[in-house]
Amino acid sequence: MASTAGSIIPCKAAVAWEAGKPLVIEQVEVAPPKAMEVRVKIKYTSLCHTDVYFWEAKGQAPLFPRIFGHEAAGIVESVGEGVTDVEVGDHVLPVFTGECKECAHCKSQESNMCNLLRINTDRGVMISDGNARFSKNGNPIYHFLGTSTFSEYTVVHVGCLAKIDKSAPLDKVCVLSCGISTGLGATLNVAKPKKGSTVAIFGLGAVGLAAAEGARIAGASRIIGVDLNPSRFEEAKKFGITEFVNPKDHDKPVQEVIAEMTNGGVDRSVECTGNVKAMMSAFECVHDGWGVAVLVGVPNKDDMFMTKPVNLLNERTLRGTFFGNYKPRTDLPSVIDMYMKKQLEVEKFITHRVPFSDINKAFDYMLKGESLRCLISMDE
Amino acid sequence: MASTAGSIIPCKAAVAWEAGKPLVIEQVEVAPPKAMEVRVKIKYTSLCHTDVYFWEAKGQAPLFPRIFGHEAAGIVESVGEGVTDVEVGDHVLPVFTGECKECAHCKSQESNMCNLLRINTDRGVMISDGNARFSKNGNPIYHFLGTSTFSEYTVVHVGCLAKIDKSAPLDKVCVLSCGISTGLGATLNVAKPKKGSTVAIFGLGAVGLAAAEGARIAGASRIIGVDLNPSRFEEAKKFGITEFVNPKDHDKPVQEVIAEMTNGGVDRSVECTGNVKAMMSAFECVHDGWGVAVLVGVPNKDDMFMTKPVNLLNERTLRGTFFGNYKPRTDLPSVIDMYMKKQLEVEKFITHRVPFSDINKAFDYMLKGESLRCLISMDE
Repeated sequence: MASTAGSIIPCKAAVAWEAGKPLVIEQVEVAPPKAMEVRVKIKYTSLCHTDVYFWEAKGQAPLFPRIFGHEAAGIVESVGEGVTDVEVGDHVLPVFTGECKECAHCKSQESNMCNLLRINTDRGVMISDGNARFSKNGNPIYHFLGTSTFSEYTVVHVGCLAKIDKSAPLDKVCVLSCGISTGLGATLNVAKPKKGSTVAIFGLGAVGLAAAEGARIAGASRIIGVDLNPSRFEEAKKFGITEFVNPKDHDKPVQEVIAEMTNGGVDRSVECTGNVKAMMSAFECVHDGWGVAVLVGVPNKDDMFMTKPVNLLNERTLRGTFFGNYKPRTDLPSVIDMYMKKQLEVEKFITHRVPFSDINKAFDYMLKGESLRCLISMDE
Repeated sequence: MASTAGSIIPCKAAVAWEAGKPLVIEQVEVAPPKAMEVRVKIKYTSLCHTDVYFWEAKGQAPLFPRIFGHEAAGIVESVGEGVTDVEVGDHVLPVFTGECKECAHCKSQESNMCNLLRINTDRGVMISDGNARFSKNGNPIYHFLGTSTFSEYTVVHVGCLAKIDKSAPLDKVCVLSCGISTGLGATLNVAKPKKGSTVAIFGLGAVGLAAAEGARIAGASRIIGVDLNPSRFEEAKKFGITEFVNPKDHDKPVQEVIAEMTNGGVDRSVECTGNVKAMMSAFECVHDGWGVAVLVGVPNKDDMFMTKPVNLLNERTLRGTFFGNYKPRTDLPSVIDMYMKKQLEVEKFITHRVPFSDINKAFDYMLKGESLRCLISMDE
């Protein structure tokens, strides 16, 4: 055990004091992990749209002060009672959703939506005792997604930690704990394109490009990128995108454009925008008989997906996915392994790097649409 | 070759002269098969709702005089040029959809929606020359679904004929060429319930009961039948239905009733009514994380399927199927085999029998909702 085990650790964290205002690097106190919890020294973290969405707090009840951050890599500093799956010194990826290994979902081979540790964006405390492990001057600071990785140390439920190979470089695999795995898994685990098949990807942000990367790895012959922003196409080629369709360039629905390009439709599509019209297009652009459309993007809660039933009856399949259908603890090591074997190219997703002290720059890059992933180095 | 090969065969057929009027047994002439066609002596046929729907001609352009019928079993009388897959004396099931073995669908392992021979309810002629093979006094009589089995002899494209084991009793396997296989395959090939799983079946007509039979064969632990008609439950038990839900008995949506009965939803559902509200319920009653809903019933063309995207994103799957995803020529022999091995119980679907001369009684039984399948014996 480290000498800090069992003690409160004072350290730096980037605290969001109110919605939409720059984070402030503060000295905070991180309590020791309780039963089934693990305290992790974060080495690298990166910024995801979900952080920005809840930091802006435009669509949900605000919960501040809060420490955001959920894509990260770190090293176990100490473990709470009952933790046997990881030990001090283990390399881990904190994950925004968990795997208790006990519930019906965890026991099902088909689901990764753990009943106990499934993503909960409203909760700002640990589930065991309903308290925060972060505080400043005795006042609690809320957690985010059970991870709160914008801190030198954080406390995470053991079910939300993927133990990974120590030889994996943390400044690369850091980005595999959320968006990249979400897109990659949507293609590899859910759409499952066969070698030589055609795939359409809706939305060429990081998640969509990871979905394209999955199609590239699967050996798709054509990967059609769909985005309203033509400036994304050049970079998208690095991720295997072979053709680009901008719906704004056409008078007809994009699903018809794609059907004409592909003799009736693509074999697979993956929707990564969350726009409900894009979801419907992504479904209707797949070929009858065998087409599979996979929905990844998170829609507004009042949206309604609509399609004529005949589009289904003609043997199309519509599937939703969450975190690329990866079980965090069981499956993430295999994603790391794909990277170590040079099948999955992670470097190209990391477009920017900043030291922790400049974390607000990462927000700027994302808000301007300049970055895919901005790596935040805690030690710099 | 039979002595009739190459000659016109005069025989009896049940001709529909106009919409909704009783069929008339007429002496008709059946021309020899042309290239890639086969003339079949029908031994048994049965009545399906699709025959009745097009006979009533309420929803589509009427095409009369016409010979209906598409569930049948018979023996090859003669073959046209180029036919190599079947020969005189072979036992065959004519099928309303086909398998050319050459198109992208036939070459795909995932589709059975043959481009050349896919169901076409508007066509009343053979595809090779656009003419009918039936006539009376020199005037053509239209075909139906490429099968027209309400005739002692009929001409069928070889791609619409499943060659079957000669030891299979034709008066039983006759009913496997349409609705029963459609329901059975929807469960076994598309929903794929695991042993011990829970399954909901919407609509307890012949197709729905065949879907239940599939769930029974797959070893489902609970098979919940949903129907507005409570009189169907007693018979449905024979097909493995363990519980019955009548949506009329509840104030809340049936998907909520089913979710409460099953701790969050069934593992699989199969929709066999064609009612778009039932389709939406069938989708929303499956469990998040792993639930799969399969749509079989044919809706009205203006219907719209609607659901909140979150229902999909919570890892539900929605699939449509056509003819139970069976490829007619390649896969139907395996269905016959299931019957011969006593896994699939066909007899319980055959609730009535009539001689060909009484074919209009079969229509009466179906219109009154009394029959599942009425077998029509051509030799009686």
